[in-house]
Amino acid sequence: MSGSRVIGDWGGTRLRLWRLEDGEVAERREGPGILTGGDPGETLAAILGDWPADRIVLCGMAGARGGLHEMPYLPCPVSADQWRAQGKAHEFAGSRLRIAAGLSCRDASGRPDVMRGEETQIIGAMALEPELATGTHLVLLPGTHSKWVRLDDGAIVGFRTCPTGELFALLGRSSLFPEGEAAGNDNEGFAAGLQRADERGLLSTLFEARAAQLVDGRSGNWAQGFLSGLLIGAEIVEMAPEGTVLVIGDAGLTARYGEALARRGVPMRAMDGEACAIAGLRLIDED
Amino acid sequence: MSGSRVIGDWGGTRLRLWRLEDGEVAERREGPGILTGGDPGETLAAILGDWPADRIVLCGMAGARGGLHEMPYLPCPVSADQWRAQGKAHEFAGSRLRIAAGLSCRDASGRPDVMRGEETQIIGAMALEPELATGTHLVLLPGTHSKWVRLDDGAIVGFRTCPTGELFALLGRSSLFPEGEAAGNDNEGFAAGLQRADERGLLSTLFEARAAQLVDGRSGNWAQGFLSGLLIGAEIVEMAPEGTVLVIGDAGLTARYGEALARRGVPMRAMDGEACAIAGLRLIDED
Repeated sequence: MSGSRVIGDWGGTRLRLWRLEDGEVAERREGPGILTGGDPGETLAAILGDWPADRIVLCGMAGARGGLHEMPYLPCPVSADQWRAQGKAHEFAGSRLRIAAGLSCRDASGRPDVMRGEETQIIGAMALEPELATGTHLVLLPGTHSKWVRLDDGAIVGFRTCPTGELFALLGRSSLFPEGEAAGNDNEGFAAGLQRADERGLLSTLFEARAAQLVDGRSGNWAQGFLSGLLIGAEIVEMAPEGTVLVIGDAGLTARYGEALARRGVPMRAMDGEACAIAGLRLIDED
Repeated sequence: MSGSRVIGDWGGTRLRLWRLEDGEVAERREGPGILTGGDPGETLAAILGDWPADRIVLCGMAGARGGLHEMPYLPCPVSADQWRAQGKAHEFAGSRLRIAAGLSCRDASGRPDVMRGEETQIIGAMALEPELATGTHLVLLPGTHSKWVRLDDGAIVGFRTCPTGELFALLGRSSLFPEGEAAGNDNEGFAAGLQRADERGLLSTLFEARAAQLVDGRSGNWAQGFLSGLLIGAEIVEMAPEGTVLVIGDAGLTARYGEALARRGVPMRAMDGEACAIAGLRLIDED
């Protein structure tokens, strides 16, 4: 099947669209997150603009309640083929629209977790590196809601969410920074925060970011770095990864998590999050 | 020394003033927190209104930078007598104004912590129950910034802050509750959150409050209760109290912490926070 194609990852805070030509990315556009207000259909039409699009494929919050069309959460374990087969086509402004399903899982105690969008990156990573589709792999997608995902012979068998990035943003606007959020993210503070995460619990350490400004004259930037190191460190202490971690994300965040993992002697390797998202989206409704 | 007296506790979110007659509380007024905007002097004058006040004594954020007059943090250990002796008198609209000093401390690793206002309640508690002034006691003042305080033979020797209440408020406005903060605080959810805090770390459990709404049909109220139980439970797991805990606070929060402490087999007893604040404030500039 041929024709013009647009694929996109629409998260809570950002829309990224790619126009494909002969299956390859020819152009890229960005727009607002689906939770940042406005009618999703109108927003999508405006960002698509003059792009021809016989077919559109979206992942992420586009399939959430309040998104374009609500899609189910497929319960884990889920293979790439099961995931690709999900979902009927919708019509959007004359285009055929398909939206990726999300995933749900339960831990050993039966407690639930969900994801929307990260599954596309993971399945894309398996398409880019077929050796990921055999054996067991631990994948980390750091971000607003970090996902720690277990792969077993090509299936996503379970995962856990740490809302580390969201907590960092919330605390940046808290009483820890009464003069307003500092812009920087100090390396010395980051290292101090990582160290602190090894020493004691998160909740009883957060306030040190404020006390160090008041008593020791630390800057707001140092405290931001401390908070970042403390949160990322706490995430890794809690998740206690063993073996090599595959980190899928952007370069900046991957480097920060890499420093935290190295500190605990955990090997890692990295893949680019955008490349993985594109590879996953191309699997849906493909030629 | 006689004359009209007003005492008050001015925190970040609330001002409470008490007018004394012959040393006893005759009237009570409330006003906005010192961080909620407006010139502190004008706010205080407006709430004082027609009250006669030869002498005014305030504790809390009244002594913070940006408050009425910045007061130092006294480094622990600090006895009641050392604390009472601090601070020169200021003049406020014809009244003699004194503001309580805050406290600072360092843990065994030298990391700092600070308090403003809670020291007044603790020293007030020792005035109300003199047996607290001998031996070792662990005191918890739950709230926006929970304080865990160690007393040794009448001196405050150290403390640690957990910003549990602030985190609860921040997370109530997070993506865990996309439809807006739920008003209730479900008991079943609270118990589930307490249990979860015993099982695994805070950061990797928070998102369950959202997933349980999406996958298991839990209400926003249940999720609020879960979040409250998880945070209070995590605080107690991290602080790992031993021996009896003296909880100084209001009845509602004391009951919640009591349930969490009982779950871990930790005995507690309670004192009313407002009574302790009044008792502490009366020690400063007293007749």
